[in-house]
Amino acid sequence: MKIASFKHSDFSGYGLIKDHGIVSISTHFKQRFPCLKDVLDANALGELGEDCNGRSIDYPIDDVQLLPPITNPSRIFCVGINYPKRYPLDNPVAPPANIILFAKMPGTLVGHGERLEIPEGEAADTFDYEGEVGIILGKAGRHIKESEALNYVAGYTIINDGSVRTWQKHSIHAGKNFANSGSCGPWMVTADEITDLAAMQLTTRLNGKIVQDTTVSKMLFSIPEIIAYISHTIDLRPGDLIATGSPEGAGGSQQPPRFLRRGDILDFEVSGVGILHNPVGQ
Amino acid sequence: MKIASFKHSDFSGYGLIKDHGIVSISTHFKQRFPCLKDVLDANALGELGEDCNGRSIDYPIDDVQLLPPITNPSRIFCVGINYPKRYPLDNPVAPPANIILFAKMPGTLVGHGERLEIPEGEAADTFDYEGEVGIILGKAGRHIKESEALNYVAGYTIINDGSVRTWQKHSIHAGKNFANSGSCGPWMVTADEITDLAAMQLTTRLNGKIVQDTTVSKMLFSIPEIIAYISHTIDLRPGDLIATGSPEGAGGSQQPPRFLRRGDILDFEVSGVGILHNPVGQ
Repeated sequence: MKIASFKHSDFSGYGLIKDHGIVSISTHFKQRFPCLKDVLDANALGELGEDCNGRSIDYPIDDVQLLPPITNPSRIFCVGINYPKRYPLDNPVAPPANIILFAKMPGTLVGHGERLEIPEGEAADTFDYEGEVGIILGKAGRHIKESEALNYVAGYTIINDGSVRTWQKHSIHAGKNFANSGSCGPWMVTADEITDLAAMQLTTRLNGKIVQDTTVSKMLFSIPEIIAYISHTIDLRPGDLIATGSPEGAGGSQQPPRFLRRGDILDFEVSGVGILHNPVGQ
Repeated sequence: MKIASFKHSDFSGYGLIKDHGIVSISTHFKQRFPCLKDVLDANALGELGEDCNGRSIDYPIDDVQLLPPITNPSRIFCVGINYPKRYPLDNPVAPPANIILFAKMPGTLVGHGERLEIPEGEAADTFDYEGEVGIILGKAGRHIKESEALNYVAGYTIINDGSVRTWQKHSIHAGKNFANSGSCGPWMVTADEITDLAAMQLTTRLNGKIVQDTTVSKMLFSIPEIIAYISHTIDLRPGDLIATGSPEGAGGSQQPPRFLRRGDILDFEVSGVGILHNPVGQ
């Protein structure tokens, strides 16, 4: 299933993607589970499917505003340097000995189709994209074994880990947490639909030109390793997001650097998931 | 006013501290504002005072379990290296050129009186405390000027920025985000009660012995500077927490290092606020 959160006039809800449209959940279902996170909390993805089963679409996709699939993630874990990279170009980065984590806070991610906010002041000069495969947790767990980690995944999405490179030198947190600088969407694809995780392909296009292109198999730390590692520090919860790291090709790693400008168009594609599309600028 | 969030049997609520007890808010008030963050969202601290005004206490303090004053902070901003420090002792740290930020996630902070959770495995060997002055935001804002920053503060609290030093070498995030490794409380003191912010004294006691002792005046970056800096990256919101950094004297900076062990007792005191007390270990 592809499950999207969306807004249509004054109505905010979620539903299944079908035939270029959305089958919205029933009023009864929405009362029980106000948002997708509540469905995951209750382990009710199957019921969601039944609720929408056999019904025709309520809205064509183009008539709704898609929101990040988890509209209110309480925790967004991000992995740094998780693909072989050369950055800066004259000083290749050695693969890290351990997983590198940082956090994005609520307020940093917009949905599919929404404009990325260019930061004010000199921060605007090094505003950058990072396409990433996103994981949405479906089950609570602590000290999760790698061999069982994928059982905790509800589904996959796409995340643009928007970054301000100069502020990232102050602290990774500052550079990664500008308001509305990143994005998530267009929806969540449930884990059962991804039959070959390693083959999942991630491609970023800037104004139509491919700038990032890799597969999940190239990750330095695998998705099960990431889940196991994080869960050693803290209990994972349904609705938690994990951004699994970005491959070579962000603007700051180009020669010369090519940072984002007003009017740029970004498309982040993950095979089996879809395309997350964001124009740049207010 | 001192405002505490608390639990008593099956009841979770909040109220004013008075005469070693709690004046709980009325049922009517609780319906309007289920938690303290909702009060801040509605700019209704004055109404809270009126609701409790003239009433006697409902519970002696010792009969309730105090919770972190903001029980569900969506964002916990933390400042690193914000006091003059020597760490490691043979290599004094230069003051940073910029404010250093990182995040603690929901699930990392327990309340006053609760036990800090010792991490499993080798992480237990470098489990450390960091006493800090905590800020609770009361008003939404972006690009806040330093000269106006204190108008955005609802009140002050105490934060123990619990840290696992070995995992902090993987990434600052990992070391700072073990479940229930830190604490916040015992309550929030409203900003109007702090007449001399710079003179506010922060003292940490480990098993009764003073290990950290400083005043807010010693901060490398002042509270207005911190608020202005963060608000340049993202909109601040009512209920956001800021941990303002910890002075010299954490266990890892002692010679030899003295990390936390099961049975240790920590008391974090901030003048004008109170004492946050936490035993160590499950």
